[in-house]
Amino acid sequence: MQDMLQKVKQASTKLATLKGNTKDRVLLDMANALIDNVDTILEQNQKDLVYAKENNLNTALVDRLLLNEKRIEAMAKALIEIANLKNPVGRILEGWELPNGLRIEKTAIPIGVIGIIYESRPNVTSDAAALCFKSGNACILKGGKEAKYSNQAIANILQDVLLKHNLPKEAISLLPDYSREGVAQLIKMDKYVDLIIPRGGEGLIRYVSQNATVPVVKHDKGLCHTYIHKDADIDKAVKIALNAKVQRPGVCNAMETLLVDEEIATLILPILKDEFDKAHTKLKGDEAVAKLLEIEKASDEDWDTEYLANILSIKIVKNVDEAISHIQAHGSGHSEAIVSENYTASEKFLNEIDAACVYVNASTRFTDGGEFGFGAEVGISTNKLHARGPMGINDLTTYKFKIYGEGQIR
Amino acid sequence: MQDMLQKVKQASTKLATLKGNTKDRVLLDMANALIDNVDTILEQNQKDLVYAKENNLNTALVDRLLLNEKRIEAMAKALIEIANLKNPVGRILEGWELPNGLRIEKTAIPIGVIGIIYESRPNVTSDAAALCFKSGNACILKGGKEAKYSNQAIANILQDVLLKHNLPKEAISLLPDYSREGVAQLIKMDKYVDLIIPRGGEGLIRYVSQNATVPVVKHDKGLCHTYIHKDADIDKAVKIALNAKVQRPGVCNAMETLLVDEEIATLILPILKDEFDKAHTKLKGDEAVAKLLEIEKASDEDWDTEYLANILSIKIVKNVDEAISHIQAHGSGHSEAIVSENYTASEKFLNEIDAACVYVNASTRFTDGGEFGFGAEVGISTNKLHARGPMGINDLTTYKFKIYGEGQIR
Repeated sequence: MQDMLQKVKQASTKLATLKGNTKDRVLLDMANALIDNVDTILEQNQKDLVYAKENNLNTALVDRLLLNEKRIEAMAKALIEIANLKNPVGRILEGWELPNGLRIEKTAIPIGVIGIIYESRPNVTSDAAALCFKSGNACILKGGKEAKYSNQAIANILQDVLLKHNLPKEAISLLPDYSREGVAQLIKMDKYVDLIIPRGGEGLIRYVSQNATVPVVKHDKGLCHTYIHKDADIDKAVKIALNAKVQRPGVCNAMETLLVDEEIATLILPILKDEFDKAHTKLKGDEAVAKLLEIEKASDEDWDTEYLANILSIKIVKNVDEAISHIQAHGSGHSEAIVSENYTASEKFLNEIDAACVYVNASTRFTDGGEFGFGAEVGISTNKLHARGPMGINDLTTYKFKIYGEGQIR
Repeated sequence: MQDMLQKVKQASTKLATLKGNTKDRVLLDMANALIDNVDTILEQNQKDLVYAKENNLNTALVDRLLLNEKRIEAMAKALIEIANLKNPVGRILEGWELPNGLRIEKTAIPIGVIGIIYESRPNVTSDAAALCFKSGNACILKGGKEAKYSNQAIANILQDVLLKHNLPKEAISLLPDYSREGVAQLIKMDKYVDLIIPRGGEGLIRYVSQNATVPVVKHDKGLCHTYIHKDADIDKAVKIALNAKVQRPGVCNAMETLLVDEEIATLILPILKDEFDKAHTKLKGDEAVAKLLEIEKASDEDWDTEYLANILSIKIVKNVDEAISHIQAHGSGHSEAIVSENYTASEKFLNEIDAACVYVNASTRFTDGGEFGFGAEVGISTNKLHARGPMGINDLTTYKFKIYGEGQIR
């Protein structure tokens, strides 16, 4: 593996100084190459599907594995979108002149080699490769073994385009070893790999963050709250709460727990129950809520559970302070919202909640790179360092200081 | 340790929302308290000195341990300087409005709990505590056991000031366990500690980065080069090379290897030798240099050695490309310089060298928070992520997104 990673590292120095228009031309060629090679990709994807059938993989997994012409077109379209993004490399982040005349420029540069570990969807192979390429990074990709043939087919096509442009094919590399042993080795290769991004289940992410010596940007959990303050606009509150829960319950920025101010609880809870019933949401409540709405009582565990399903736990709180302390105790630092027309309560919530995204009068569902206007989705980080919250392509860069002198010494 | 860290974490939430002027008043009070308690500090410092004598610690170490009235005054002065810095918390780093009217503000906030592991100098205790406090972070400090009594005395004084201002004393905590076991536990406490900064020898830093599950910002090595290009101004080149090596040879931003373009080698090397001889620098050279200057031949290891002493290895290179590839192979990504009047060569060097700081026509000795104008010195990071190069107090913050809505849903 060391030999291989050494080549990836070498490739990364080549990529680091590529001009923006060269990168974009390569990405557009990659998009075309995917379309031109639909048959090859489908042929290899078929092998993965046969393996899935033979091993009785569940239908949800098989659906994620499955490629067809439309899905491959979507992959190509994603590459075109990435080509159209602004070059994240070379941005001057800050700059100043020292009293002695030295001029300092803090400039965005690629990180180097990025390892991405993901699960069954083969489209991640081209997405991740393109995001890294656009930001001047070499990548080493480790997909799910159930998508082995599809991933290899896609990577081969992208590598052929690299070669056509006289670029090292190692700039987009697949980890040959699909075992956990392969991952175990990769995440310790801090000499060659500069960043690991694990995308997948909780077990994988925990394993990677506990064992990596390479820095990790992870996304581990989204336990999001919405707090309806006593001075909330009832209409807005109902719409926001409903949207945060039911618009897409299986995602990390969906609400899991609703906090309602005691002053308006008897007024708003029955309205909310009607709406959630229409949306077939399973409701659980603390003692008072359960009694009022005649619903199931929530257990202690419910307040710490990311349902990722159309289930909602509801709790009555005394005031904004109690809401904040409940969220600090049970939230995952992802996305939290207050609904209120009150200036002071809103400001307090915004300032005191420690989360990647804190909202006033909006649905937590907006925590998303696309919604934030970042273009392509790199992921959502629950790290506190390097990148926090929705990650755009700019987050795949680091910086260096360029210092311009005319003979200065100390 | 868990109970203790839980209290530090709690203290951090209190600190996170302190106003700038409150923090500055506390820091000024801390400065006064150090002066008012000089006798207590010296008394406790005496105990450490007795221990040092009993254990035959070397004189350099004893000198670093030693406190006197002047050194305590310098500690107080450092606190005043930190109080005078601009509040790093609450800076709006970016902000934009989405098409749907949501306003997004990316705002600097404290990181939370910062663990700092350092060695014998007791002044680091007040410096590190003040830097963390000013940036709204709670800290857990682990000093050297040889400075145990001094560190405790200083921490007690700072904690008393916190209590006087109704702030939790745990905001500035000392790790009670001075053993390596204590460090081993601390660096795995990712539930309570958000960042570890190890300051000390290579062994400590390697141990921490290999074993921590908490993110680490480290400073591991400074192997800096200066490359004298064929179109260099000879005067500037000699001055810069001399300064980079001899002004303070024992520090990380001092030059260890000088690269000289073959076209000007016979012209400039004798001049350099004269100057370095006057400065008592021990010179080693590759075969050609050794022959020309009649000096010791450098071994293969020399090119990878951070001397931290008045020793310099010199190598002749063919051109800027060979200089860059030598630096990429042997440099530590800290600070690298080119001396040249040639625009294209300078730009090439600036763009292709992957290091925290890249200089044209200036001494690498400027890589320093103070020189960069950051005010107080947090350290110099050789990380690629979070912070790279000289770290100012702003680097002790992370960010959150505040999103202002008026009822937006997806």
